[in-house]
Amino acid sequence: MELWFTENQNENVRFSIKIKEHIYSEKSEFQKIDVYETYGFGKLLTIDGIIMVTEKDEFIYHEMITHVPLAAKPSIKSVLVIGGGDGGTVRELTRYKTIEKIDMVEIDKMVVDVSKKYIKQTSKNLNDERVNLYYEDGIEFVKNRQDEYDLIIVDSTDPIGPGEGLFTEDFYKNCYKALKEDGIMINQNESPYYEKERKEFKRANKKIQKIFPIVEVYQFHMPTYPSGHWLFGFSSKGIKPVNKGINDWNKLDIKTKYYNTDIHNASFMLPNYVKEIIKDEK
Amino acid sequence: MELWFTENQNENVRFSIKIKEHIYSEKSEFQKIDVYETYGFGKLLTIDGIIMVTEKDEFIYHEMITHVPLAAKPSIKSVLVIGGGDGGTVRELTRYKTIEKIDMVEIDKMVVDVSKKYIKQTSKNLNDERVNLYYEDGIEFVKNRQDEYDLIIVDSTDPIGPGEGLFTEDFYKNCYKALKEDGIMINQNESPYYEKERKEFKRANKKIQKIFPIVEVYQFHMPTYPSGHWLFGFSSKGIKPVNKGINDWNKLDIKTKYYNTDIHNASFMLPNYVKEIIKDEK
Repeated sequence: MELWFTENQNENVRFSIKIKEHIYSEKSEFQKIDVYETYGFGKLLTIDGIIMVTEKDEFIYHEMITHVPLAAKPSIKSVLVIGGGDGGTVRELTRYKTIEKIDMVEIDKMVVDVSKKYIKQTSKNLNDERVNLYYEDGIEFVKNRQDEYDLIIVDSTDPIGPGEGLFTEDFYKNCYKALKEDGIMINQNESPYYEKERKEFKRANKKIQKIFPIVEVYQFHMPTYPSGHWLFGFSSKGIKPVNKGINDWNKLDIKTKYYNTDIHNASFMLPNYVKEIIKDEK
Repeated sequence: MELWFTENQNENVRFSIKIKEHIYSEKSEFQKIDVYETYGFGKLLTIDGIIMVTEKDEFIYHEMITHVPLAAKPSIKSVLVIGGGDGGTVRELTRYKTIEKIDMVEIDKMVVDVSKKYIKQTSKNLNDERVNLYYEDGIEFVKNRQDEYDLIIVDSTDPIGPGEGLFTEDFYKNCYKALKEDGIMINQNESPYYEKERKEFKRANKKIQKIFPIVEVYQFHMPTYPSGHWLFGFSSKGIKPVNKGINDWNKLDIKTKYYNTDIHNASFMLPNYVKEIIKDEK
Protein backbone atom coordinates (compact mmCIF):
# COMPACT_ATOMS: atom_id res chain seq x y z
CA MET A 1 0.00 0.00 0.00
CA GLU A 2 1.19 3.53 -0.78
CA LEU A 3 0.22 6.57 1.27
CA TRP A 4 0.12 9.95 -0.44
CA PHE A 5 -0.63 13.38 1.00
CA THR A 6 -2.34 15.52 -1.64
CA GLU A 7 -2.84 19.26 -1.45
CA ASN A 8 -5.43 20.76 -3.76
CA GLN A 9 -3.40 23.86 -4.54
CA ASN A 10 -6.43 25.16 -6.36
CA GLU A 11 -9.37 23.62 -8.22
CA ASN A 12 -7.13 22.73 -11.18
CA VAL A 13 -3.83 21.75 -9.56
CA ARG A 14 -2.81 19.06 -7.09
CA PHE A 15 0.54 18.44 -5.44
CA SER A 16 1.25 15.10 -3.77
CA ILE A 17 4.00 13.84 -1.50
CA LYS A 18 4.61 10.18 -0.67
CA ILE A 19 4.12 9.46 3.02
CA LYS A 20 5.84 6.97 5.29
CA GLU A 21 3.64 7.55 8.30
CA HIS A 22 0.85 9.82 9.48
CA ILE A 23 2.33 10.78 12.85
CA TYR A 24 -0.20 13.20 14.29
CA SER A 25 -3.69 14.48 13.55
CA GLU A 26 -5.72 16.70 15.81
CA LYS A 27 -8.22 19.51 15.64
CA SER A 28 -7.32 22.51 17.74
CA GLU A 29 -9.72 25.28 18.67
CA PHE A 30 -8.73 27.00 15.42
CA GLN A 31 -7.69 24.48 12.79
CA LYS A 32 -6.75 20.91 11.88
CA ILE A 33 -3.08 20.09 12.43
CA ASP A 34 -1.33 17.09 10.87
CA VAL A 35 2.25 15.86 10.91
CA TYR A 36 3.57 13.29 8.47
CA GLU A 37 6.85 11.48 8.03
CA THR A 38 7.48 11.66 4.29
CA TYR A 39 9.76 10.17 1.70
CA GLY A 40 12.12 12.84 0.47
CA PHE A 41 10.88 15.82 2.50
CA GLY A 42 11.48 14.78 6.11
CA LYS A 43 8.68 15.85 8.42
CA LEU A 44 5.68 17.61 6.92
CA LEU A 45 3.37 19.92 8.90
CA THR A 46 0.00 20.77 7.39
CA ILE A 47 -2.79 23.03 8.65
CA ASP A 48 -6.28 22.43 7.28
CA GLY A 49 -4.73 20.27 4.57
CA ILE A 50 -2.29 22.98 3.38
CA ILE A 51 1.49 22.48 3.48
CA MET A 52 3.07 24.78 6.08
CA VAL A 53 6.53 23.29 6.57
CA THR A 54 8.61 20.47 5.15
CA GLU A 55 12.02 19.83 6.63
CA LYS A 56 13.51 19.75 3.13
CA ASP A 57 12.64 23.28 1.99
CA GLU A 58 11.76 25.27 5.13
CA PHE A 59 15.27 26.72 5.16
CA ILE A 60 14.46 28.84 2.13
CA TYR A 61 11.36 30.43 3.65
CA HIS A 62 12.90 31.01 7.07
CA GLU A 63 16.20 32.39 5.79
CA MET A 64 14.46 34.79 3.45
CA ILE A 65 11.95 36.05 6.03
CA THR A 66 14.69 36.93 8.56
CA HIS A 67 18.07 37.66 6.98
CA VAL A 68 16.68 40.18 4.49
CA PRO A 69 15.47 42.63 7.18
CA LEU A 70 18.49 41.94 9.42
CA ALA A 71 20.89 42.75 6.58
CA ALA A 72 18.90 45.86 5.68
CA LYS A 73 19.02 47.09 9.30
CA PRO A 74 21.76 45.40 11.38
CA SER A 75 20.87 47.38 14.50
CA ILE A 76 17.61 45.47 15.03
CA LYS A 77 17.27 44.65 18.73
CA SER A 78 13.59 43.95 19.41
CA VAL A 79 11.50 41.75 17.17
CA LEU A 80 7.85 40.74 17.12
CA VAL A 81 6.93 37.54 15.26
CA ILE A 82 3.23 37.09 14.59
CA GLY A 83 2.38 33.49 13.79
CA GLY A 84 5.33 31.28 12.94
CA GLY A 85 4.30 28.55 15.37
CA ASP A 86 6.73 26.01 13.87
CA GLY A 87 9.59 28.09 15.27
CA GLY A 88 11.67 28.33 12.09
CA THR A 89 11.59 32.13 11.99
CA VAL A 90 12.64 32.36 15.64
CA ARG A 91 15.42 29.81 15.00
CA GLU A 92 16.98 32.09 12.38
CA LEU A 93 16.50 35.23 14.52
CA THR A 94 18.29 33.70 17.51
CA ARG A 95 21.43 33.39 15.39
CA TYR A 96 21.91 37.16 15.81
CA LYS A 97 23.72 37.98 19.05
CA THR A 98 22.63 41.59 18.63
CA ILE A 99 18.93 40.79 18.98
CA GLU A 100 17.85 41.31 22.59
CA LYS A 101 14.15 40.46 22.58
CA ILE A 102 11.92 38.25 20.44
CA ASP A 103 8.21 38.32 21.21
CA MET A 104 6.36 35.60 19.37
CA VAL A 105 2.57 35.71 19.29
CA GLU A 106 0.95 32.54 18.05
CA ILE A 107 -2.81 32.19 18.40
CA ASP A 108 -2.72 28.38 18.40
CA LYS A 109 -0.64 26.84 21.19
CA MET A 110 -1.18 23.43 19.67
CA VAL A 111 0.92 24.36 16.62
CA VAL A 112 3.82 25.24 18.90
CA ASP A 113 3.39 22.13 21.04
CA VAL A 114 3.21 19.85 18.01
CA SER A 115 6.25 21.50 16.43
CA LYS A 116 8.22 21.21 19.67
CA LYS A 117 7.40 17.54 19.87
CA TYR A 118 7.73 16.43 16.25
CA ILE A 119 9.68 19.05 14.27
CA LYS A 120 12.76 19.89 16.30
CA GLN A 121 14.52 21.14 13.17
CA THR A 122 12.37 24.28 13.23
CA SER A 123 11.35 24.50 16.88
CA LYS A 124 14.71 23.89 18.56
CA ASN A 125 15.43 27.50 19.52
CA LEU A 126 12.02 28.42 20.91
CA ASN A 127 13.52 28.00 24.38
CA ASP A 128 16.15 30.68 23.79
CA GLU A 129 16.06 33.02 26.80
CA ARG A 130 15.38 36.07 24.62
CA VAL A 131 12.14 34.50 23.31
CA ASN A 132 8.81 35.34 24.93
CA LEU A 133 5.94 33.18 23.76
CA TYR A 134 2.42 34.62 23.83
CA TYR A 135 -0.50 32.36 22.92
CA GLU A 136 -2.77 35.18 21.89
CA ASP A 137 -4.42 36.72 18.88
CA GLY A 138 -1.73 38.72 17.08
CA ILE A 139 -4.33 41.25 15.96
CA GLU A 140 -5.19 42.13 19.56
CA PHE A 141 -1.60 41.91 20.76
CA VAL A 142 -0.33 44.50 18.31
CA LYS A 143 -3.16 46.95 19.10
CA ASN A 144 -1.66 47.70 22.49
CA ARG A 145 1.91 48.28 21.39
CA GLN A 146 3.50 51.54 20.44
CA ASP A 147 6.99 52.43 19.29
CA GLU A 148 8.30 49.13 20.64
CA TYR A 149 9.78 46.97 17.87
CA ASP A 150 12.54 47.39 15.31
CA LEU A 151 11.09 44.57 13.25
CA ILE A 152 7.68 42.90 12.96
CA ILE A 153 7.50 39.65 10.99
CA VAL A 154 4.02 38.59 9.96
CA ASP A 155 4.65 34.88 9.45
CA SER A 156 1.05 34.02 8.75
CA THR A 157 -0.89 31.28 7.04
CA ASP A 158 -3.04 32.10 4.02
CA PRO A 159 -5.81 34.64 4.71
CA ILE A 160 -8.38 32.02 5.62
CA GLY A 161 -9.35 31.02 9.16
CA PRO A 162 -7.28 32.58 11.97
CA GLY A 163 -4.84 34.11 9.43
CA GLU A 164 -7.51 36.30 7.85
CA GLY A 165 -7.24 39.25 10.23
CA LEU A 166 -3.51 39.47 9.53
CA PHE A 167 -4.31 40.73 6.03
CA THR A 168 -6.42 43.76 7.04
CA GLU A 169 -5.63 47.47 6.81
CA ASP A 170 -6.28 47.99 10.52
CA PHE A 171 -3.79 45.29 11.38
CA TYR A 172 -1.09 46.83 9.18
CA LYS A 173 -1.82 50.24 10.76
CA ASN A 174 -1.31 48.79 14.20
CA CYS A 175 1.95 47.21 13.07
CA TYR A 176 3.10 50.61 11.83
CA LYS A 177 2.27 52.10 15.22
CA ALA A 178 4.00 49.28 17.12
CA LEU A 179 7.21 49.85 15.16
CA LYS A 180 9.95 52.21 16.22
CA GLU A 181 11.02 55.15 14.12
CA ASP A 182 13.14 53.13 11.71
CA GLY A 183 11.06 49.97 11.92
CA ILE A 184 10.56 47.29 9.28
CA MET A 185 7.61 45.01 8.67
CA ILE A 186 8.00 41.76 6.73
CA ASN A 187 4.81 40.00 5.68
CA GLN A 188 4.03 36.67 4.06
CA ASN A 189 2.76 38.02 0.76
CA GLU A 190 1.47 34.92 -1.07
CA SER A 191 2.34 34.33 -4.73
CA PRO A 192 1.89 36.12 -8.06
CA TYR A 193 1.23 33.03 -10.17
CA TYR A 194 -2.13 31.37 -9.53
CA GLU A 195 -5.22 33.54 -9.31
CA LYS A 196 -6.12 32.75 -5.70
CA GLU A 197 -2.75 33.80 -4.25
CA ARG A 198 -2.30 36.63 -6.76
CA LYS A 199 -5.52 38.24 -5.55
CA GLU A 200 -4.35 38.11 -1.93
CA PHE A 201 -0.91 39.43 -2.88
CA LYS A 202 -2.54 42.41 -4.63
CA ARG A 203 -4.95 43.14 -1.82
CA ALA A 204 -2.32 43.01 0.91
CA ASN A 205 0.13 45.10 -1.11
CA LYS A 206 -2.51 47.74 -1.82
CA LYS A 207 -3.38 48.07 1.86
CA ILE A 208 0.24 48.30 2.98
CA GLN A 209 0.95 50.94 0.32
CA LYS A 210 -1.53 53.23 2.08
CA ILE A 211 0.33 53.03 5.37
CA PHE A 212 4.08 52.61 4.87
CA PRO A 213 6.23 55.04 2.85
CA ILE A 214 8.56 52.26 1.66
CA VAL A 215 6.83 49.15 0.32
CA GLU A 216 8.71 46.59 -1.72
CA VAL A 217 8.22 42.94 -2.57
CA TYR A 218 10.82 40.21 -2.88
CA GLN A 219 10.67 36.71 -4.29
CA PHE A 220 12.16 33.30 -3.69
CA HIS A 221 11.87 29.67 -4.83
CA MET A 222 9.65 27.66 -2.49
CA PRO A 223 9.20 24.21 -4.04
CA THR A 224 6.35 22.90 -1.87
CA TYR A 225 4.15 26.02 -2.09
CA PRO A 226 1.79 26.51 -5.05
CA SER A 227 3.81 27.35 -8.21
CA GLY A 228 7.07 27.41 -6.24
CA HIS A 229 7.16 31.20 -6.70
CA TRP A 230 6.59 32.96 -3.38
CA LEU A 231 6.75 36.53 -2.10
CA PHE A 232 7.44 38.47 1.06
CA GLY A 233 6.63 42.13 1.53
CA PHE A 234 9.29 44.49 2.92
CA SER A 235 7.76 47.69 4.31
CA SER A 236 9.44 50.31 6.42
CA LYS A 237 9.25 53.82 7.78
CA GLY A 238 12.35 54.82 5.84
CA ILE A 239 14.94 52.07 5.47
CA LYS A 240 15.34 50.77 1.96
CA PRO A 241 15.68 47.01 1.52
CA VAL A 242 18.58 47.36 -0.90
CA ASN A 243 21.11 49.75 0.58
CA LYS A 244 24.84 50.28 0.87
CA GLY A 245 25.09 48.46 4.18
CA ILE A 246 23.87 45.07 2.91
CA ASN A 247 27.35 43.65 2.35
CA ASP A 248 28.25 44.19 6.02
CA TRP A 249 26.03 41.21 6.74
CA ASN A 250 28.85 38.98 5.47
CA LYS A 251 31.03 40.05 8.43
CA LEU A 252 28.59 38.29 10.78
CA ASP A 253 29.69 34.93 9.34
CA ILE A 254 26.21 33.40 9.58
CA LYS A 255 26.10 30.22 7.49
CA THR A 256 23.06 30.00 5.24
CA LYS A 257 21.92 27.57 2.56
CA TYR A 258 19.78 29.86 0.40
CA TYR A 259 20.33 33.48 1.48
CA ASN A 260 23.38 35.50 0.53
CA THR A 261 23.78 39.23 -0.06
CA ASP A 262 23.66 38.80 -3.86
CA ILE A 263 20.37 36.90 -3.54
CA HIS A 264 19.22 39.68 -1.19
CA ASN A 265 19.60 42.33 -3.86
CA ALA A 266 18.44 40.05 -6.68
CA SER A 267 15.26 38.98 -4.90
CA PHE A 268 13.82 42.51 -5.19
CA MET A 269 14.12 42.38 -9.00
CA LEU A 270 10.70 41.23 -10.14
CA PRO A 271 9.42 39.79 -13.43
CA ASN A 272 7.35 42.19 -15.51
CA TYR A 273 4.07 40.42 -14.84
CA VAL A 274 4.65 40.70 -11.08
CA LYS A 275 5.43 44.41 -11.36
CA GLU A 276 2.19 44.84 -13.32
CA ILE A 277 0.20 43.27 -10.49
CA ILE A 278 1.65 45.82 -8.05
CA LYS A 279 1.19 48.74 -10.43
CA ASP A 280 -2.47 47.85 -11.04
CA GLU A 281 -3.16 48.40 -7.41
CA LYS A 282 -1.51 51.74 -6.83
CA MET B 1 -16.17 12.36 -14.10
CA GLU B 2 -12.97 14.32 -13.62
CA LEU B 3 -9.90 13.87 -15.82
CA TRP B 4 -6.49 14.60 -14.32
CA PHE B 5 -3.08 14.47 -15.93
CA THR B 6 -0.48 13.41 -13.33
CA GLU B 7 3.27 13.66 -13.73
CA ASN B 8 5.37 11.57 -11.39
CA GLN B 9 8.03 14.26 -10.91
CA ASN B 10 10.02 11.67 -9.02
CA GLU B 11 9.21 8.61 -6.92
CA ASN B 12 8.05 10.80 -4.02
CA VAL B 13 6.32 13.72 -5.75
CA ARG B 14 3.36 14.01 -8.10
CA PHE B 15 1.97 17.04 -9.87
CA SER B 16 -1.52 16.96 -11.36
CA ILE B 17 -3.44 19.24 -13.68
CA LYS B 18 -7.18 19.04 -14.33
CA ILE B 19 -7.97 18.17 -17.94
CA LYS B 20 -10.87 19.22 -20.14
CA GLU B 21 -10.00 16.98 -23.06
CA HIS B 22 -7.27 14.65 -24.23
CA ILE B 23 -6.81 16.09 -27.73
CA TYR B 24 -3.98 14.03 -29.16
CA SER B 25 -1.97 10.92 -28.34
CA GLU B 26 0.50 9.24 -30.65
CA LYS B 27 3.79 7.40 -30.52
CA SER B 28 6.43 8.74 -32.85
CA GLU B 29 9.60 6.90 -33.81
CA PHE B 30 11.21 8.44 -30.72
CA GLN B 31 8.65 9.10 -28.01
CA LYS B 32 5.03 9.36 -26.93
CA ILE B 33 3.43 12.72 -27.61
CA ASP B 34 0.23 13.94 -25.96
CA VAL B 35 -1.72 17.17 -26.09
CA TYR B 36 -4.39 18.09 -23.57
CA GLU B 37 -6.83 20.95 -23.19
CA THR B 38 -6.59 21.83 -19.51
CA TYR B 39 -8.40 23.92 -16.95
CA GLY B 40 -6.21 26.85 -16.01
CA PHE B 41 -3.13 26.12 -18.15
CA GLY B 42 -4.45 26.27 -21.72
CA LYS B 43 -2.95 23.60 -23.96
CA LEU B 44 -0.52 21.14 -22.40
CA LEU B 45 2.11 19.23 -24.40
CA THR B 46 3.71 16.20 -22.77
CA ILE B 47 6.43 13.85 -24.04
CA ASP B 48 6.64 10.41 -22.47
CA GLY B 49 4.35 11.67 -19.70
CA ILE B 50 6.54 14.66 -18.81
CA ILE B 51 5.27 18.25 -19.07
CA MET B 52 7.06 20.11 -21.88
CA VAL B 53 4.87 23.14 -22.44
CA THR B 54 1.76 24.68 -20.97
CA GLU B 55 0.33 27.79 -22.57
CA LYS B 56 0.14 29.44 -19.14
CA ASP B 57 3.81 29.39 -18.18
CA GLU B 58 5.80 28.74 -21.40
CA PHE B 59 6.47 32.47 -21.70
CA ILE B 60 8.86 32.30 -18.77
CA TYR B 61 10.98 29.50 -20.22
CA HIS B 62 11.05 30.92 -23.75
CA GLU B 63 11.78 34.50 -22.72
CA MET B 64 14.62 33.45 -20.44
CA ILE B 65 16.23 31.09 -22.97
CA THR B 66 16.39 33.79 -25.69
CA HIS B 67 16.48 37.34 -24.32
CA VAL B 68 19.35 36.65 -21.93
CA PRO B 69 21.87 35.81 -24.70
CA LEU B 70 20.45 38.47 -27.03
CA ALA B 71 20.87 41.17 -24.38
CA ALA B 72 24.39 39.93 -23.58
CA LYS B 73 25.37 40.08 -27.27
CA PRO B 74 23.03 42.26 -29.37
CA SER B 75 25.02 41.59 -32.56
CA ILE B 76 23.80 37.98 -32.81
CA LYS B 77 22.87 37.25 -36.44
CA SER B 78 22.94 33.48 -36.89
CA VAL B 79 21.32 31.11 -34.39
CA LEU B 80 21.10 27.35 -34.10
CA VAL B 81 18.26 25.92 -32.01
CA ILE B 82 18.62 22.24 -31.13
CA GLY B 83 15.33 20.71 -30.07
CA GLY B 84 12.60 23.21 -29.25
CA GLY B 85 10.02 21.48 -31.44
CA ASP B 86 7.13 23.41 -29.92
CA GLY B 87 8.48 26.56 -31.58
CA GLY B 88 8.44 28.84 -28.53
CA THR B 89 12.17 29.56 -28.66
CA VAL B 90 11.98 30.40 -32.35
CA ARG B 91 8.96 32.63 -31.70
CA GLU B 92 10.99 34.78 -29.31
CA LEU B 93 14.06 34.83 -31.62
CA THR B 94 12.03 36.06 -34.60
CA ARG B 95 11.19 39.21 -32.63
CA TYR B 96 14.74 40.43 -33.29
CA LYS B 97 15.00 42.17 -36.67
CA THR B 98 18.78 41.86 -36.42
CA ILE B 99 18.75 38.06 -36.53
CA GLU B 100 19.30 36.89 -40.11
CA LYS B 101 19.25 33.10 -39.86
CA ILE B 102 17.67 30.60 -37.46
CA ASP B 103 18.46 26.94 -38.05
CA MET B 104 16.28 24.69 -35.96
CA VAL B 105 17.18 21.02 -35.69
CA GLU B 106 14.46 18.86 -34.19
CA ILE B 107 14.89 15.10 -34.33
CA ASP B 108 11.16 14.41 -34.09
CA LYS B 109 9.09 15.94 -36.89
CA MET B 110 5.94 14.81 -35.15
CA VAL B 111 6.58 17.24 -32.25
CA VAL B 112 6.71 20.12 -34.73
CA ASP B 113 3.65 18.93 -36.65
CA VAL B 114 1.61 18.47 -33.47
CA SER B 115 2.69 21.88 -32.15
CA LYS B 116 1.82 23.55 -35.46
CA LYS B 117 -1.61 21.97 -35.41
CA TYR B 118 -2.57 22.31 -31.75
CA ILE B 119 -0.31 24.87 -30.04
CA LYS B 120 -0.25 27.93 -32.26
CA GLN B 121 0.77 30.09 -29.30
CA THR B 122 4.30 28.64 -29.44
CA SER B 123 4.53 27.46 -33.05
CA LYS B 124 3.15 30.51 -34.85
CA ASN B 125 6.48 31.89 -36.07
CA LEU B 126 8.03 28.64 -37.34
CA ASN B 127 7.13 29.82 -40.85
CA ASP B 128 9.21 32.98 -40.56
CA GLU B 129 11.37 33.19 -43.69
CA ARG B 130 14.61 33.27 -41.68
CA VAL B 131 13.82 29.88 -40.10
CA ASN B 132 15.26 26.68 -41.61
CA LEU B 133 13.78 23.51 -40.15
CA TYR B 134 15.91 20.35 -40.15
CA TYR B 135 14.36 17.12 -38.95
CA GLU B 136 17.64 15.53 -37.99
CA ASP B 137 19.65 14.41 -35.00
CA GLY B 138 21.12 17.58 -33.47
CA ILE B 139 24.19 15.63 -32.37
CA GLU B 140 25.06 14.74 -35.97
CA PHE B 141 24.03 18.13 -37.33
CA VAL B 142 26.42 20.06 -35.12
CA LYS B 143 29.37 17.75 -35.92
CA ASN B 144 29.63 19.15 -39.42
CA ARG B 145 29.49 22.83 -38.53
CA GLN B 146 32.39 25.11 -37.86
CA ASP B 147 32.58 28.79 -36.97
CA GLU B 148 29.02 29.30 -38.16
CA TYR B 149 26.75 30.48 -35.34
CA ASP B 150 26.72 33.42 -32.94
CA LEU B 151 24.36 31.54 -30.65
CA ILE B 152 23.45 27.90 -30.08
CA ILE B 153 20.42 27.18 -27.91
CA VAL B 154 20.16 23.61 -26.64
CA ASP B 155 16.43 23.50 -25.96
CA SER B 156 16.38 19.84 -25.02
CA THR B 157 14.17 17.50 -23.05
CA ASP B 158 15.60 15.77 -19.99
CA PRO B 159 18.61 13.52 -20.68
CA ILE B 160 16.55 10.41 -21.30
CA GLY B 161 15.59 9.05 -24.70
CA PRO B 162 16.54 11.21 -27.71
CA GLY B 163 17.66 14.04 -25.41
CA GLU B 164 20.44 12.00 -23.82
CA GLY B 165 23.15 12.71 -26.40
CA LEU B 166 22.59 16.45 -25.89
CA PHE B 167 24.19 16.15 -22.44
CA THR B 168 27.55 14.63 -23.53
CA GLU B 169 31.00 16.21 -23.58
CA ASP B 170 31.46 15.44 -27.29
CA PHE B 171 28.26 17.27 -28.09
CA TYR B 172 29.31 20.36 -26.12
CA LYS B 173 32.72 20.25 -27.88
CA ASN B 174 31.01 20.24 -31.24
CA CYS B 175 28.84 23.17 -30.17
CA TYR B 176 31.98 25.07 -29.21
CA LYS B 177 33.46 24.35 -32.66
CA ALA B 178 30.25 25.34 -34.45
CA LEU B 179 30.23 28.71 -32.68
CA LYS B 180 31.93 31.82 -34.03
CA GLU B 181 34.69 33.59 -32.15
CA ASP B 182 32.36 35.38 -29.74
CA GLY B 183 29.74 32.68 -29.64
CA ILE B 184 27.33 31.83 -26.83
CA MET B 185 25.74 28.51 -25.93
CA ILE B 186 22.59 28.35 -23.81
CA ASN B 187 21.59 24.95 -22.51
CA GLN B 188 18.57 23.61 -20.66
CA ASN B 189 20.32 22.84 -17.38
CA GLU B 190 17.65 21.07 -15.31
CA SER B 191 17.09 22.02 -11.65
CA PRO B 192 19.10 22.14 -8.42
CA TYR B 193 16.33 20.98 -6.11
CA TYR B 194 15.36 17.33 -6.46
CA GLU B 195 18.11 14.74 -6.66
CA LYS B 196 17.37 13.48 -10.18
CA GLU B 197 17.60 16.89 -11.86
CA ARG B 198 20.41 18.06 -9.54
CA LYS B 199 22.58 15.17 -10.71
CA GLU B 200 22.03 16.07 -14.37
CA PHE B 201 22.65 19.76 -13.66
CA LYS B 202 25.99 18.89 -12.01
CA ARG B 203 27.06 16.51 -14.75
CA ALA B 204 26.25 18.89 -17.59
CA ASN B 205 27.88 21.83 -15.83
CA LYS B 206 31.04 19.84 -15.15
CA LYS B 207 31.37 18.83 -18.79
CA ILE B 208 30.77 22.33 -20.10
CA GLN B 209 33.36 23.73 -17.65
CA LYS B 210 36.01 21.69 -19.43
CA ILE B 211 35.26 23.26 -22.79
CA PHE B 212 34.10 26.87 -22.44
CA PRO B 213 36.12 29.60 -20.69
CA ILE B 214 32.98 31.38 -19.44
CA VAL B 215 30.38 29.13 -17.83
CA GLU B 216 27.58 30.57 -15.73
CA VAL B 217 24.17 29.39 -14.63
CA TYR B 218 20.98 31.39 -14.29
CA GLN B 219 17.67 30.62 -12.67
CA PHE B 220 13.99 31.34 -13.13
CA HIS B 221 10.57 30.39 -11.76
CA MET B 222 8.94 27.65 -13.86
CA PRO B 223 5.74 26.61 -12.07
CA THR B 224 4.95 23.42 -14.01
CA TYR B 225 8.45 21.92 -13.88
CA PRO B 226 9.58 19.90 -10.83
CA SER B 227 10.14 22.23 -7.82
CA GLY B 228 9.43 25.31 -9.97
CA HIS B 229 13.11 26.23 -9.75
CA TRP B 230 14.79 25.81 -13.12
CA LEU B 231 18.19 26.61 -14.63
CA PHE B 232 19.79 27.48 -17.94
CA GLY B 233 23.51 27.41 -18.60
CA PHE B 234 25.18 30.41 -20.25
CA SER B 235 28.54 29.49 -21.76
CA SER B 236 30.66 31.52 -24.11
CA LYS B 237 34.06 31.97 -25.67
CA GLY B 238 34.47 35.33 -23.97
CA ILE B 239 31.29 37.33 -23.57
CA LYS B 240 30.10 37.67 -20.00
CA PRO B 241 26.38 37.25 -19.34
CA VAL B 242 26.25 40.31 -17.10
CA ASN B 243 27.99 43.18 -18.85
CA LYS B 244 27.71 46.92 -19.35
CA GLY B 245 25.72 46.56 -22.57
CA ILE B 246 22.72 44.79 -21.02
CA ASN B 247 20.65 47.93 -20.54
CA ASP B 248 20.80 48.68 -24.28
CA TRP B 249 18.31 45.85 -24.70
CA ASN B 250 15.63 48.25 -23.45
CA LYS B 251 16.05 50.39 -26.57
CA LEU B 252 14.71 47.51 -28.67
CA ASP B 253 11.28 47.97 -27.09
CA ILE B 254 10.49 44.24 -27.05
CA LYS B 255 7.52 43.61 -24.78
CA THR B 256 8.05 40.75 -22.36
CA LYS B 257 6.05 39.30 -19.49
CA TYR B 258 8.84 37.82 -17.37
CA TYR B 259 12.19 39.04 -18.69
CA ASN B 260 13.59 42.49 -18.02
CA THR B 261 17.16 43.68 -17.69
CA ASP B 262 16.97 43.71 -13.88
CA ILE B 263 15.78 40.09 -13.91
CA HIS B 264 18.62 39.38 -16.36
CA ASN B 265 21.27 40.46 -13.88
CA ALA B 266 19.42 39.04 -10.88
CA SER B 267 18.95 35.59 -12.43
CA PHE B 268 22.71 34.93 -12.27
CA MET B 269 22.71 35.44 -8.49
CA LEU B 270 22.35 31.93 -7.10
CA PRO B 271 21.40 30.60 -3.67
CA ASN B 272 24.29 29.19 -1.64
CA TYR B 273 23.20 25.58 -2.04
CA VAL B 274 23.14 25.96 -5.84
CA LYS B 275 26.62 27.50 -5.83
CA GLU B 276 27.81 24.55 -3.73
CA ILE B 277 26.55 22.09 -6.35
CA ILE B 278 28.60 23.88 -9.02
CA LYS B 279 31.68 24.19 -6.80
CA ASP B 280 31.62 20.48 -5.95
CA GLU B 281 32.10 19.68 -9.57
CA LYS B 282 34.98 21.96 -10.45
